[in-house]
Amino acid sequence: MPRYKLTLEYDGTGLTGWQRQDNGRSVQQALEEAAEKLGGHPVRAYAAGRTDAGVHALAQVAHIELEKAFPAERVREAINFHLKGRPEIVAVVAAEQVSDDFHARFSAIERSYLYRILNRRPPPTVDRGRVWWVGRPLDADAMHAAAQRLIGTHDFTSFRAAECQAKSPIKTLDQLDVFRQGDEIHLIVRARSFLHHQVRIFAGTLRLVGEGKWNGDDLARILEARNRAAAGDTAPPYGLYLTSARYPSD
Amino acid sequence: MPRYKLTLEYDGTGLTGWQRQDNGRSVQQALEEAAEKLGGHPVRAYAAGRTDAGVHALAQVAHIELEKAFPAERVREAINFHLKGRPEIVAVVAAEQVSDDFHARFSAIERSYLYRILNRRPPPTVDRGRVWWVGRPLDADAMHAAAQRLIGTHDFTSFRAAECQAKSPIKTLDQLDVFRQGDEIHLIVRARSFLHHQVRIFAGTLRLVGEGKWNGDDLARILEARNRAAAGDTAPPYGLYLTSARYPSD
Repeated sequence: MPRYKLTLEYDGTGLTGWQRQDNGRSVQQALEEAAEKLGGHPVRAYAAGRTDAGVHALAQVAHIELEKAFPAERVREAINFHLKGRPEIVAVVAAEQVSDDFHARFSAIERSYLYRILNRRPPPTVDRGRVWWVGRPLDADAMHAAAQRLIGTHDFTSFRAAECQAKSPIKTLDQLDVFRQGDEIHLIVRARSFLHHQVRIFAGTLRLVGEGKWNGDDLARILEARNRAAAGDTAPPYGLYLTSARYPSD
Repeated sequence: MPRYKLTLEYDGTGLTGWQRQDNGRSVQQALEEAAEKLGGHPVRAYAAGRTDAGVHALAQVAHIELEKAFPAERVREAINFHLKGRPEIVAVVAAEQVSDDFHARFSAIERSYLYRILNRRPPPTVDRGRVWWVGRPLDADAMHAAAQRLIGTHDFTSFRAAECQAKSPIKTLDQLDVFRQGDEIHLIVRARSFLHHQVRIFAGTLRLVGEGKWNGDDLARILEARNRAAAGDTAPPYGLYLTSARYPSD
């Protein structure tokens, strides 16, 4: 059956995240139901990153199969048409037909995330629900320097949610850049794959580095502890954006 | 009485705009009520730009008087504290004590606005309610070139809402820059003061230039017509941001 790679953008506010849940609205359900209206048959969608409740996406990658082949542009337009007016705020920003061996989740060789911290005394307004507000001044340079201690292959048990279902806590972190952009501090995080809440625990932990409570040595100690309690709090989901998924074909 | 200049940021969604109205929530009311909790007495607030319903502000300027002098930082913090939890999403991003002859509205010598158009086929998600979505491709360079015909002192009757209460339709437009930034087209507009809906009618008219329907000569003709019906539609309020107000003391 013709298979389509879809690049999705969504506002995670009020959603249960990517995955279908009994207790609320998901991106997966919205996409599948919109695609079913195009295809006229049940559609199953798979995604590169199973984003948590409240997490946004600027370029999530999903794939679906349709029984009949349509031009990719038609797929994008038709799904967006059927998504319009739904309570989930999801859009297909790009569509392309791909071969049968493309799998949005299993073929992905890299995921990237952005975490946005609004670091100023006044609370957010226009960006409320889109940034994590930290009122105390953070030292972005110190955060960046310390974050480099997390780069590489490690047992990230300390940065993993209790409910994480990954078989192994060992992951390879390729990038964790922290920099200030006006009133915001941005974390750019890149790896083949992530543990549950890993980026949000990075953000919550680096916040304490930014406040001067911890430094790079503390991060090394936290890694070593292999204990979730050793790291900082889990930062809220609404500061987090899935920004890309990369494939061998890219 | 001690007078304070306040720089405000707000999300205009769901508000009646700056000004108090009988039929809904306004920025003015939110600010006045928060300041009254600090001052313990009635407070009247004045603003540089009486933004319309739905229009956002990144740096609106207002002033208030308090009976007792507080450090400016305390004023900012206390008002933000009292704004917290209100349905209006408003924050004081800066406060400073000013002399009695400072008036946020009457002393302002320049106002600047940003109008954001999301120009791509897929609809907005994370930025829904913060950009005007135009699906058809727009030529930003053509829009910019044509827009220069509006610069200078003109009778802007064609770019003025029917309900505009300004005594004269003659205004001096100092800047109207249009440029593309990724999927967005930004209009940067600057003048001493504006007519009602003027920036939004510029946006709605320049959209037609971007689509190739009109050019600079048409804009000159529209100006000349001195007739609202000659210009384009009024673009929606949620793409508009008040970005600054300038004073002789700046």
